[in-house]
Amino acid sequence: MSIHEEMDCRIENIESIIKKYLPEESGYQKTIFEAMNYSVLAGGKRLRPMLMLETYRLFGGESAVIEPFMAAIEMIHTYSLVHDDLPAMDNDEYRRGKKTTHAVYGEAIGILAGDALLNYAYETAAGAFSLEPENVNIGKAFQVLAKKAGVYGMVGGQTVDVESEGMESIERDRLDFIYRLKTGALIEASMLVGAILAGASEEQQEIIERVAAEVGLAFQIQDDILDVTSTLEVLGKPIGSDEKNQKATYVTFEGVDKAAEEVERLSVDAMKQLEGLPFKNPFLMDLLVYLIHREK
Amino acid sequence: MSIHEEMDCRIENIESIIKKYLPEESGYQKTIFEAMNYSVLAGGKRLRPMLMLETYRLFGGESAVIEPFMAAIEMIHTYSLVHDDLPAMDNDEYRRGKKTTHAVYGEAIGILAGDALLNYAYETAAGAFSLEPENVNIGKAFQVLAKKAGVYGMVGGQTVDVESEGMESIERDRLDFIYRLKTGALIEASMLVGAILAGASEEQQEIIERVAAEVGLAFQIQDDILDVTSTLEVLGKPIGSDEKNQKATYVTFEGVDKAAEEVERLSVDAMKQLEGLPFKNPFLMDLLVYLIHREK
Repeated sequence: MSIHEEMDCRIENIESIIKKYLPEESGYQKTIFEAMNYSVLAGGKRLRPMLMLETYRLFGGESAVIEPFMAAIEMIHTYSLVHDDLPAMDNDEYRRGKKTTHAVYGEAIGILAGDALLNYAYETAAGAFSLEPENVNIGKAFQVLAKKAGVYGMVGGQTVDVESEGMESIERDRLDFIYRLKTGALIEASMLVGAILAGASEEQQEIIERVAAEVGLAFQIQDDILDVTSTLEVLGKPIGSDEKNQKATYVTFEGVDKAAEEVERLSVDAMKQLEGLPFKNPFLMDLLVYLIHREK
Repeated sequence: MSIHEEMDCRIENIESIIKKYLPEESGYQKTIFEAMNYSVLAGGKRLRPMLMLETYRLFGGESAVIEPFMAAIEMIHTYSLVHDDLPAMDNDEYRRGKKTTHAVYGEAIGILAGDALLNYAYETAAGAFSLEPENVNIGKAFQVLAKKAGVYGMVGGQTVDVESEGMESIERDRLDFIYRLKTGALIEASMLVGAILAGASEEQQEIIERVAAEVGLAFQIQDDILDVTSTLEVLGKPIGSDEKNQKATYVTFEGVDKAAEEVERLSVDAMKQLEGLPFKNPFLMDLLVYLIHREK
């Protein structure tokens, strides 16, 4: 089976898990339930819950305690897209060929649906306390999830990104900061929560955090490269959008060749770190290589 | 000391606790940190953390584990105001005589500051796991907080409220639902979290939930009454705004006299429930009476 076939198969499994935690569309709040489910079910590769589950498995995790956290990280990722698409933010009417949430339900419900998903993510993850009340790792996983999603993580990155749009030029440090927080932090949360819930040692957690940071950065740089080197047909969205929007990227700073070298360097280091662990998960390795070197 | 002097004194103490948990305004995310702190420090009576602390004390709670939850509930309350004030929602430029968050920082940062505060509330509350890793009540308190703040609580109430604005008339059941969720749910969360963290029994938690629901509803009906019977001077904001906005309220359905009777009935029942408990907290009783019968 190719990595794509393997992924499709696993995406189906992950979506069946996520669906178990979505709200039923009934009662006075019907509209917000519909808007939440519409947003979450609008597609996507479910990379974050997939990385979480595979890291959990890497460290021998076998319990259902991972499931509410898998649903939670996808809800957090989704809420960030719903709010990013709002008129006051990126003002996008379409995402992955579908109308965005506020385009379907109006701006007020768009804001509330994002709020609802963010809150519901924590409500869902908190369900893990009922599954295993004595498991002290759940509290630790919670702390990591909230930190990586918040002002010292994703929301922090979004803010600096929004502010940078108005600037004539931005420095390299600032770009690194945005990449590390806006994209990287949730990848780190995904893999770290998997490791923590499976009982990985502090030292192993540090290795996973480093691997995730490298994968997140390589993933984002590859995005910049594809925006320059790919075609509309392969990518499924217009190329050259960064140049058109005068957006500073890793490629703007370093050029395509150096950017590709950096992706390679990050990839090699991440793999080396993972291979040094006393556990193996071949699919996780394939998945990370695919994410880093993907062509769309 | 009058209840007002007593409250002022305690508000100061609560604010010093909340401030300990606010982010430092430095680094690339400086703007979002400033917007968060501006929103939280814009005033208010800190009723929710006050109710939480006093319910915690009622059941004999004495540990610092309550503090991150007190900060968290005020952050959740604040984020809901920040998003409520947005142009796509109530479009308010001022609140308590101060510019609203989006009016100062722009709409994009207004949205992100709300997101940041909601997330930071859970991040802050999760700090309690580091204080007492083996305390299973923390996980339970977390579950209650997230549920009451979310689609089955406050956000659910906000949604139905937003949708009802477009309706020619709304039924009484729908109004009750909005009151119970939009205002009531966070009052319930405040008192329940205090009770749970102090180790109250399941039965005692049920009593507290009922008391909080009654107090929340009475508080909201009193709001409706004051909008009709008070004056600009006493209330500090224009009266008659519900009628002007053609907003259905408890007073619209029942008239002022019946509404006042309902406040009395709820108040008497709440006090009776509390008096049946084997614990006493005279200030909590005074506070609840004040909240229900306040004149502004």
